[in-house]
Amino acid sequence: MSAYRELSPSLRTIMTPGPVEADPRVLRAMSYPVLGQFDPEFTGLMNETMSMLRELFRTGNEWCFPVDGTSRSGLEAVLVSLIRPGDRVLVPIFGRFGHLLAEIAERSGAEVSVIETEWGTVFEPETVIQAIHRHKPHLVAIVHGETSTGQMQPLEEIGKACRELDILLVVDAVATIGGTAVETDQWMLDAVIGGTQKCLSVPSGMAPVTYNSRVEQKLLSRKRIERGLADPAAGEAAARPVSDSIRSNYFDLSQLQDYWGPMRLNHHTEATSMLYALHEGLRIVLAEGLEERFTRHRINEMALTAGLQAMGLQLYGDQASKLPVVTCPLIPEGIDGEQVRSMLLHQFGIEIASSFGPLKGRIWRIGTMGFSCRQTNVLQVLGALEAVLLRCGFRLPAGEAVQAALDVYTGK
Amino acid sequence: MSAYRELSPSLRTIMTPGPVEADPRVLRAMSYPVLGQFDPEFTGLMNETMSMLRELFRTGNEWCFPVDGTSRSGLEAVLVSLIRPGDRVLVPIFGRFGHLLAEIAERSGAEVSVIETEWGTVFEPETVIQAIHRHKPHLVAIVHGETSTGQMQPLEEIGKACRELDILLVVDAVATIGGTAVETDQWMLDAVIGGTQKCLSVPSGMAPVTYNSRVEQKLLSRKRIERGLADPAAGEAAARPVSDSIRSNYFDLSQLQDYWGPMRLNHHTEATSMLYALHEGLRIVLAEGLEERFTRHRINEMALTAGLQAMGLQLYGDQASKLPVVTCPLIPEGIDGEQVRSMLLHQFGIEIASSFGPLKGRIWRIGTMGFSCRQTNVLQVLGALEAVLLRCGFRLPAGEAVQAALDVYTGK
Repeated sequence: MSAYRELSPSLRTIMTPGPVEADPRVLRAMSYPVLGQFDPEFTGLMNETMSMLRELFRTGNEWCFPVDGTSRSGLEAVLVSLIRPGDRVLVPIFGRFGHLLAEIAERSGAEVSVIETEWGTVFEPETVIQAIHRHKPHLVAIVHGETSTGQMQPLEEIGKACRELDILLVVDAVATIGGTAVETDQWMLDAVIGGTQKCLSVPSGMAPVTYNSRVEQKLLSRKRIERGLADPAAGEAAARPVSDSIRSNYFDLSQLQDYWGPMRLNHHTEATSMLYALHEGLRIVLAEGLEERFTRHRINEMALTAGLQAMGLQLYGDQASKLPVVTCPLIPEGIDGEQVRSMLLHQFGIEIASSFGPLKGRIWRIGTMGFSCRQTNVLQVLGALEAVLLRCGFRLPAGEAVQAALDVYTGK
Repeated sequence: MSAYRELSPSLRTIMTPGPVEADPRVLRAMSYPVLGQFDPEFTGLMNETMSMLRELFRTGNEWCFPVDGTSRSGLEAVLVSLIRPGDRVLVPIFGRFGHLLAEIAERSGAEVSVIETEWGTVFEPETVIQAIHRHKPHLVAIVHGETSTGQMQPLEEIGKACRELDILLVVDAVATIGGTAVETDQWMLDAVIGGTQKCLSVPSGMAPVTYNSRVEQKLLSRKRIERGLADPAAGEAAARPVSDSIRSNYFDLSQLQDYWGPMRLNHHTEATSMLYALHEGLRIVLAEGLEERFTRHRINEMALTAGLQAMGLQLYGDQASKLPVVTCPLIPEGIDGEQVRSMLLHQFGIEIASSFGPLKGRIWRIGTMGFSCRQTNVLQVLGALEAVLLRCGFRLPAGEAVQAALDVYTGK
């Protein structure tokens, strides 16, 4: 007889840059019974999901589907499918997740060049464009919303420059998709990777991606049919030299699109319950409306920042390029950031985040994402943070933070 | 306003080799609220999951954790983490999923040798051992339960031979784990990959893996700390030459074990709801008891095969090496297998599977796995299949199939 108990997770107020709280309707969707992967009812849900993703990514791209894995599985699927070993890849880095793109590209066999700008800022588009002219990469990979620093990189001019030079532009929109505008077609982004567990408020475990025909062309030039599926009689087969084929089977987008497309060529077994969750999450996003959703994120961000500043906290980084869904207060002198986080969690059931590398111990990161991004949560985190800081001996004007936030909500 | 409707998936009786029905308790677990990935309550669940996986895999291995992706993500994680480009890999193939192992190994840069045996049979262990002596591989990768043909490969002698020759043995136990014995330690398997959506009856989306210290040693020799996480001051860093590092970031087991281990080094964001599902699924498996569970699978298999034979259907493949959780009746002459499957699904809500490649149109595959593996389902599929075959003009002794199955259940 097993000694393990049934699950009974505590209720949390999650104000991190992800994973955030999921809408109860999304959680319910995951509790529905399993359908087979080729059941017409299930493939119908797959098709609807693709169609909703097109609206989310603001694109006419045929290919919009999730990779079955967490957000970085989508990044790796796009990069490993596009990069031929030896290809030149340029990665402009302004935080931790830029380093991740460089790392994935490098492991995919690329010759990676990076340019870096100070954490807490973003690039002038012209700086990136000059680097493109200098390095002449096959592909540029860049983060849109950098959650490690709370910064957001403008992409429109970079997109235009890449298109003119016939360079592929791959964008990590894991943190921004569903929370602020991501204009795949208008900004001329060739491939975009979104995340589920942030502004979409669907649990971690899928990575929606989209890519255009420029990308597809490159994929098809590297395509191989999976062994054991190819029909040798039809001359299909794994005849293409291995050296040029995509280095991963799981992340081979040319195979994934044959599974998501009308051929329905067997690849993995689609993650049923996660697909239910994504389908329901997208339905909720589109029912709210993208513009309305972005406005909601903006208002809660304004209330949060007003409250933090009223508390006497300073915000990290260039506010002109602030990521609207993550706010990074500096940890005040003499305060132990981890102790504050621990008190918030254990006394108030509220989670906020620390950061990485050079920013560890210097800033907190507070997310206002998706279902977690709501007035009740913002007021709660401000009230609790104030109480904890007072408890830790930080001098602040008691009561003002919540009032400042309420002023924003009531339009005062 | 969105035109997409709320989810409302139909109830199905799923008798395929996966995905199969999930226990209602597993479905409920996925509907619980999200916890943060570093919330002590969540990391506690991660630790419990590892501990339950050790019991499932029958191993003392430290490392037992899920890869966040479908089953083949686990296969790729193990192979790409272990294979240095140029390494010799031997893959004995007796069905489609052997080809998949060869394909993943090849894409990971291995020099792959394969030996093949006729589909519907398995290898004499001695044949594999001779091939090992001939090819002198660094690694042998083999399928345990081959769902494409319904065959199960005995592994004990192969494990012993590999250990004696200091060769790593990687086993795909996706179809067998939780349904029939998989003795990781006793059979001297160095790395084993399980599946969730088959005999564990947890929805697709995770791949539990385990590996021993022989494997870990090889991983550590290739280890790199992720860029943006390494502390250059501590001399850590990505100093290792890229050429020797693991080709994937997402599937880098040396990084995954630092996330699952006490260091809790940030990698991906663990898939919260899938982990809840796996935790609950494992709890249910261990509460039933492994031996009791295997016996249940055997009895339902006996009832199903008795019923199919009473109906006049022949079973495909060598019955001495039959995989106990998948049964493959030959499609009778003159019957359209796909029409039968479609009638079962649309008239009876029952799903059975077809097969791949050379077996497409020749056999059906009926799973008796996990929560789907129960008397009511077996009786239902036999009754419905008989009705559909009669409808299609196949001559059979009406009524006998269900009686034969009942005889098994009542011990007559």
